[in-house]
Amino acid sequence: MKMVRSVNFKEELETKTREADRVVRSFLPEAKGFPAQMIEAMNYSVAAGGKRIRPILVMEAFRMFGGRGDTAWPFMAAIEMVHTHSLIHDDLPAIDNDDYRRGKKTTHAVYGEALGILSGDALLNYAYETALSSLADGKQTDRKIRALRILANKSGVYGMLGGQSVDVQNEKMGSLSLSSQELDYIYLHKTSALLEASLEMGAVLAGAGEREAAAMEQIGRKTGLAFQIRDDILDVTGTRETLGKPVLSDAKNQKTTYVTLYGTEKAEEIVQELTGEAEKLLERLPGEKEFLCGLLEWMACREK
Amino acid sequence: MKMVRSVNFKEELETKTREADRVVRSFLPEAKGFPAQMIEAMNYSVAAGGKRIRPILVMEAFRMFGGRGDTAWPFMAAIEMVHTHSLIHDDLPAIDNDDYRRGKKTTHAVYGEALGILSGDALLNYAYETALSSLADGKQTDRKIRALRILANKSGVYGMLGGQSVDVQNEKMGSLSLSSQELDYIYLHKTSALLEASLEMGAVLAGAGEREAAAMEQIGRKTGLAFQIRDDILDVTGTRETLGKPVLSDAKNQKTTYVTLYGTEKAEEIVQELTGEAEKLLERLPGEKEFLCGLLEWMACREK
Repeated sequence: MKMVRSVNFKEELETKTREADRVVRSFLPEAKGFPAQMIEAMNYSVAAGGKRIRPILVMEAFRMFGGRGDTAWPFMAAIEMVHTHSLIHDDLPAIDNDDYRRGKKTTHAVYGEALGILSGDALLNYAYETALSSLADGKQTDRKIRALRILANKSGVYGMLGGQSVDVQNEKMGSLSLSSQELDYIYLHKTSALLEASLEMGAVLAGAGEREAAAMEQIGRKTGLAFQIRDDILDVTGTRETLGKPVLSDAKNQKTTYVTLYGTEKAEEIVQELTGEAEKLLERLPGEKEFLCGLLEWMACREK
Repeated sequence: MKMVRSVNFKEELETKTREADRVVRSFLPEAKGFPAQMIEAMNYSVAAGGKRIRPILVMEAFRMFGGRGDTAWPFMAAIEMVHTHSLIHDDLPAIDNDDYRRGKKTTHAVYGEALGILSGDALLNYAYETALSSLADGKQTDRKIRALRILANKSGVYGMLGGQSVDVQNEKMGSLSLSSQELDYIYLHKTSALLEASLEMGAVLAGAGEREAAAMEQIGRKTGLAFQIRDDILDVTGTRETLGKPVLSDAKNQKTTYVTLYGTEKAEEIVQELTGEAEKLLERLPGEKEFLCGLLEWMACREK
């Protein structure tokens, strides 16, 4: 793996996070509107968000294929709404039962469980309201429809939500019982699906062809898997201080991970392999992609 | 109000329910696919459904404006998926906590709370997957986009989900505390919004103009309100035997209803007024609408 990450990568990431954050927030329901509490909960959940990785991926893929202007904006917001919806529902008492995420109270912890469920629903729905509203100007309709269908397919039963459903069932069954195929299914759907959607949508909105879009999808697939394996590794090698969350929680919960299946060293090798493959795919594509390449590497090799 | 309901209305309703049911089921995820449990839960929830009123409204509105063929089918399925999603989440322990609906176990009672949440999400998302897939043939794209935007807007924070959020908050506050404006807000969003969407989508898909679509929306609005007030009345005047559910539950839960605000007699008058207004709007529109007229009346005047 080449060290393509520039010295200024961190700074650039921060700038792009701010940019993406501004775009995402500009599409949220007007904070002073009615129904007040639901809108407040929707805004709260998105505001509590992290690095806006998915919207940044949309934007970078869009630019890489020559996209200019604000066509990708509603889709950047939409993918972040789908993602945030999944976090809100994941944190619910019936699923992960987390009252805190990134040091902030989770949505249901602030607004109650009922509004946690309903405002998660409303954010998922608002992703479609937002992306569909982009069709109003009658411009680039075909590209936007392609992007919308990617968004819907990657988010649903055959994408992210499907992955979550298997994850939840397996946690119920407990104790190290997953096969490597099952674990891959979960990671590739729960995590990869929305990264695939981000990169593919950005490309498609800029006019990329089928083969280029498929390559972007593959890059998202490999990066998502590497990202998730990195999570497994950090749970063993990280510290509470750097991660900001408890370590060794997988072992405690007897979860099957890449570390339990392959050991830390082999898991690390697989991350390097996947990242290398993703970078190779990216290199073959046209356009300016230095930052995107750095971002993919950062996602797989981060230390927290 | 005229008694337009034909002697054969009940029979016709049964036939149309079977028709709509076939259409809706044909768009569900293949029952033998993967992720198995989530797909099973999605199919279970929809199969446990009732009279398919919303898909029938789409179909009737579509036919009324001269629609032919299967253009409306994916939208019939989509509106029923949105509706079923709302029932699954409504029944959850954190909201209404119902283990039975229409004599059948609710989704979370069969599949557990986590899968109840996630498969409700997946059904909402699948509504968009289904409606968006109708765009693949490149035909009637403008009409389908209009219908999709109606679906999304009426389902979300400014439609059904918004209404549910206020309903939930008010139940938490309890004891007869709603103003008539707040009660109307809840009924017009929780119930009317999807009926408005059904009638408007059907009309738009058949090529109806803005004014005709707006009239259909108004008809849905009035009918939804009448339908919900009828519910309030039946809770007082019905019997457990005819309704198949406990009566006087609103009083027991100290819920504000049209009966507590206006009394049974006045509430009944309002239902008749709303139904009369809806029928008048319908009469002014073109096309064959005898069954639709009967259906609207049945919804407002049903005895269970």
